[in-house]
Amino acid sequence: MDKLRIIKIGGNVIENQSALSSFLMDFSLLNGYNLLVHGGGKEASQLANQLNIPVNIIDGRRITDHATLDLITMVYGGKINKSIIAQLQYLGCNALGFTGADGNSIVASKRPVKPIDFGFVGDITQVNTDIIKILLQAGVTPVFCAITHDGSGQLLNTNADTVASSLAQALASDFEVELLYCFEKKGVLEKVEDDESVLLKINSLLYQQLLKEQKIHSGMLPKLKNCFDALSKGVSKVFIGNADMLKGQLPFTQIEI
Amino acid sequence: MDKLRIIKIGGNVIENQSALSSFLMDFSLLNGYNLLVHGGGKEASQLANQLNIPVNIIDGRRITDHATLDLITMVYGGKINKSIIAQLQYLGCNALGFTGADGNSIVASKRPVKPIDFGFVGDITQVNTDIIKILLQAGVTPVFCAITHDGSGQLLNTNADTVASSLAQALASDFEVELLYCFEKKGVLEKVEDDESVLLKINSLLYQQLLKEQKIHSGMLPKLKNCFDALSKGVSKVFIGNADMLKGQLPFTQIEI
Repeated sequence: MDKLRIIKIGGNVIENQSALSSFLMDFSLLNGYNLLVHGGGKEASQLANQLNIPVNIIDGRRITDHATLDLITMVYGGKINKSIIAQLQYLGCNALGFTGADGNSIVASKRPVKPIDFGFVGDITQVNTDIIKILLQAGVTPVFCAITHDGSGQLLNTNADTVASSLAQALASDFEVELLYCFEKKGVLEKVEDDESVLLKINSLLYQQLLKEQKIHSGMLPKLKNCFDALSKGVSKVFIGNADMLKGQLPFTQIEI
Repeated sequence: MDKLRIIKIGGNVIENQSALSSFLMDFSLLNGYNLLVHGGGKEASQLANQLNIPVNIIDGRRITDHATLDLITMVYGGKINKSIIAQLQYLGCNALGFTGADGNSIVASKRPVKPIDFGFVGDITQVNTDIIKILLQAGVTPVFCAITHDGSGQLLNTNADTVASSLAQALASDFEVELLYCFEKKGVLEKVEDDESVLLKINSLLYQQLLKEQKIHSGMLPKLKNCFDALSKGVSKVFIGNADMLKGQLPFTQIEI
């Protein structure tokens, strides 16, 4: 099987124009099949403030009312996604932007309103890979923002880490998939306050131990869950680190079952 | 050759949610190969006002400074395009959104700053149809907003009528292309003030005559130029009318060489 890298970049890479340019340069130099997933970052909140749309975040998750969904669709699906596409084209990478509605690629269901009503937030129920595969084979690099749809005309805000993991799982039957989570740290840290304490490998056993010792930073918990979900569903390799990881530059964290 | 309909809808259809839903319903019922191009409408100007971004329109064309380009990318490329995609998916039409940057499909050059500096406005120089054709053959309906790119990382605001005409011309070597301009009127009017005075056919001869008699409304002039450009470059048929034209319902205007 051919190798496919699925790389997710977070808000912090997107917020910093020079970090983003540098990342996109490294990304465009990767050979073989690649797919990019990007988060959003602070820009949506900034625009919300300018438009007097209240920003409500509970447990790190944005409450997505109608106005906020429009905002996210504009910023993530419009400005950020299209800016990345234009930059990748300049770098010789034939990119094409996606939400989950495009090509019906990612279907989600609106999250139940209890215990917390997150609004127009979607939990992924189905990934359709046909169009993605056709495009990859045609030399196109799909670039996903973290918006899905419910198949009934409703767009839904969805966690970007989960979008990446779900795409990786769905494509694992056709490709040897490597899933890379790029963020600002060099990897998963043993000591939250020490940026150099990168754990080079985390397997299920160590993961359970770290959980028990409550050593994992709360923001890292759902990311690690996505990693183990992916591995358990046939994804070959999962890595967490900063952009230097694309160049194979240690340290970064490899997640193993 | 297979038939391909390229249908352009203007701002007035997009601004009215029920008109848009009704149009998309008719569009989704068309068989064969179809491609949609949509304009923008007043929403970008409304958002500009909310964000205190000055709106400058000269000769019906928007002066596109950096802030305005971001705005257009958010509204046209994000909110409007993705809302249309989600609605079409609901209607069983496997749509996929495009700017000209996506798949490097439409390359443009920034318009010279003299005599008027329109800012980030692009004149189309190249249309690459490979990816569009692959997607059409895979059962996908491309949906273009009127944003192009210069190949050097810069997105550009481009006239939607011209986007539709350029796509029609480029695809005319592979398909028997019908180009349909949908707007609020029933067709090209002989008397501007009489909505029922639809000219059923306009050929080059009548066009020249109408021009000489200054009978053509100024807003219609560039649209008709796009029509004749398309016909002279191998597009089979060109029509101007309202959304009922999709159902073959007369009257509407057919443009002929």
